[in-house]
Amino acid sequence: MRRKALFTPGPLNCAPEVHAAMQGDIGSREPAFIETVQRIRESVLHVAGLTTDDDYTVIPLQGSGTYSVEGAINTLLSPDNKILILENGAYGKRIFEIVKRSQKAHTILSAEPTEHPSAEKIRELLESDAAIDHIALVHCETTTGILNPLSEIAALATQYGCRLIVDAMSSFGGIEIDFKKHDIACLITSSNKCLEGAPGLGLVVLKESLLKDCAGHSSTISLDLYEQWLGLRANGQFRFTPPTHSILALEAALKLLEDERGVNGRHKRYKRNHSLLLKKMAKLGLHPILDPDKQSPIITAFPLKEEWNLTFDQLADTLASKDLIIYPGKLDSVNCFRIGTIGQIQEDDISFLCEELERILPA
Amino acid sequence: MRRKALFTPGPLNCAPEVHAAMQGDIGSREPAFIETVQRIRESVLHVAGLTTDDDYTVIPLQGSGTYSVEGAINTLLSPDNKILILENGAYGKRIFEIVKRSQKAHTILSAEPTEHPSAEKIRELLESDAAIDHIALVHCETTTGILNPLSEIAALATQYGCRLIVDAMSSFGGIEIDFKKHDIACLITSSNKCLEGAPGLGLVVLKESLLKDCAGHSSTISLDLYEQWLGLRANGQFRFTPPTHSILALEAALKLLEDERGVNGRHKRYKRNHSLLLKKMAKLGLHPILDPDKQSPIITAFPLKEEWNLTFDQLADTLASKDLIIYPGKLDSVNCFRIGTIGQIQEDDISFLCEELERILPA
Repeated sequence: MRRKALFTPGPLNCAPEVHAAMQGDIGSREPAFIETVQRIRESVLHVAGLTTDDDYTVIPLQGSGTYSVEGAINTLLSPDNKILILENGAYGKRIFEIVKRSQKAHTILSAEPTEHPSAEKIRELLESDAAIDHIALVHCETTTGILNPLSEIAALATQYGCRLIVDAMSSFGGIEIDFKKHDIACLITSSNKCLEGAPGLGLVVLKESLLKDCAGHSSTISLDLYEQWLGLRANGQFRFTPPTHSILALEAALKLLEDERGVNGRHKRYKRNHSLLLKKMAKLGLHPILDPDKQSPIITAFPLKEEWNLTFDQLADTLASKDLIIYPGKLDSVNCFRIGTIGQIQEDDISFLCEELERILPA
Repeated sequence: MRRKALFTPGPLNCAPEVHAAMQGDIGSREPAFIETVQRIRESVLHVAGLTTDDDYTVIPLQGSGTYSVEGAINTLLSPDNKILILENGAYGKRIFEIVKRSQKAHTILSAEPTEHPSAEKIRELLESDAAIDHIALVHCETTTGILNPLSEIAALATQYGCRLIVDAMSSFGGIEIDFKKHDIACLITSSNKCLEGAPGLGLVVLKESLLKDCAGHSSTISLDLYEQWLGLRANGQFRFTPPTHSILALEAALKLLEDERGVNGRHKRYKRNHSLLLKKMAKLGLHPILDPDKQSPIITAFPLKEEWNLTFDQLADTLASKDLIIYPGKLDSVNCFRIGTIGQIQEDDISFLCEELERILPA
């Protein structure tokens, strides 16, 4: 039997080893679990290209990735700080919603979902508003699949003395990120995207030296990364019940990432998946809505053509009957659908999906 | 091989059917998953003795149970409300920390961890402070295993026109709770306690009519139950990535609860476990630190006798080498250890644990 293939930005298909890791139960305060958590934190640091000698630590936080973004922003920013949010899609907008709710000082720079944020406009803003001391960027905006120019924006952040917060939810583990070169203050990712674990846990990689000034910043105890860090430092434990099965799954998933020769090896598989997808879709006359130089290998948006006379739900349901799960579009301007190429998806999954699409879509 | 037996207040031992449910992957926005979430919400309502005709709804929230407590308090209380927190242990203190952090008006009434909150003192407080319009109670305080007098406190809440918020994290599903008789405004529980699922999800059962006035109360979007409710109403989906495997596990766990003849049947098993534990521990000269009339069948605290010359870690490590996981004490006043009797724990597990304790502990 074919398994269900998830062509989504996550939750994704997990490997059999990851599923197997969830077959056991473990106490959240027993030494064996505490050691697992420590191994995971070190392993994620390693995936980030860092070691325990660097001024970085990994804080796992229960819940969805958004919780960790909100936790990071609420914990790192004091009432004296001001953050510039670079937005070109739903996840940039979500950071804006988080910051508005927290009542922290902020400004937003929006770009079209198919365009990069303008370096010139960022520079103008930073020149004209000296209060801005943080910049938030979504690395891969899955709204369209656009890969934002981390390097360029990191250089601006450094030049203007701003701390850079990177939402790398759907890129970390699948795309190399150089923490030191880009002087990243804080990066947020999740257990269930390119790390290919089960959902239930966010992971924040941040400069440990920043945390000591963050007591009491967060308006909630649940999302307080400072207290989460204190708790882990004190006894290696989560303050509140962790998703033990997701954590066992993540440990297994991190081993598989190593087996795949790390981020570089995984990136190559995702690129192969993505190249095959583009090639086969082109044969069906379908092209990504993004320019090739902005397109990530993570997820790709294709137009849902009006002439097909087919709603997304109709298309998705027909594919779902073959255990092929695709993702709806998220743009107001263009009716589209999205195909993710990450997780335990291989080239034969892509081929099967495109064969089915060929069968379904009017020629 | 014996499996690891978790004598904790959760995460607990899950049934094979629950583990099996985590073997699949499912997309968080596909119709099959949306239907699963809807079935779970209805099933939890049923466990609560309610139907969709009642003014109650079930809101699942990603993260640990504490997130749902914080979400409920931050969402339900406006700046005009004032909450009385009844505290006799760590989880009452945690609610206090949540409320302090939220800067909502509050007062706390503390009792000794081995004593019930005083009805007389509650009445005095409610008489003298008309601003109090919410009362928060921990139903089963696992600090000691004490079962707090829900009925008595609910009657006072009703008499003084206060909304009752019940932290039933470790009791819901294992102890009958009459929502209508006690006029409970809001109850919070978790996927991984007496419901015997995997951790990763809190569940809030609350009066739906209260929610409509709660827009914008929460200081975070992640823990905003009002917006979580709007999202579920709009399209049946979580706003942010849900722990899909934990949710599939919970569906399987809820079926098993039904197979066990619901809360009543499960309560009987827990009582049998607990009675056997007390009988066998008494033979070792060990008695709970609580009076019998206050003791729940959920978890029991026993003194760690000084004459043993044994630290908790030494005791726990020796038992762990036999795959028996016990829980540390949580009292400042008495050095103790705790034995949970919930989850997929059967009488032979209790017998094996007590045999091992007999072997380890000095006579």
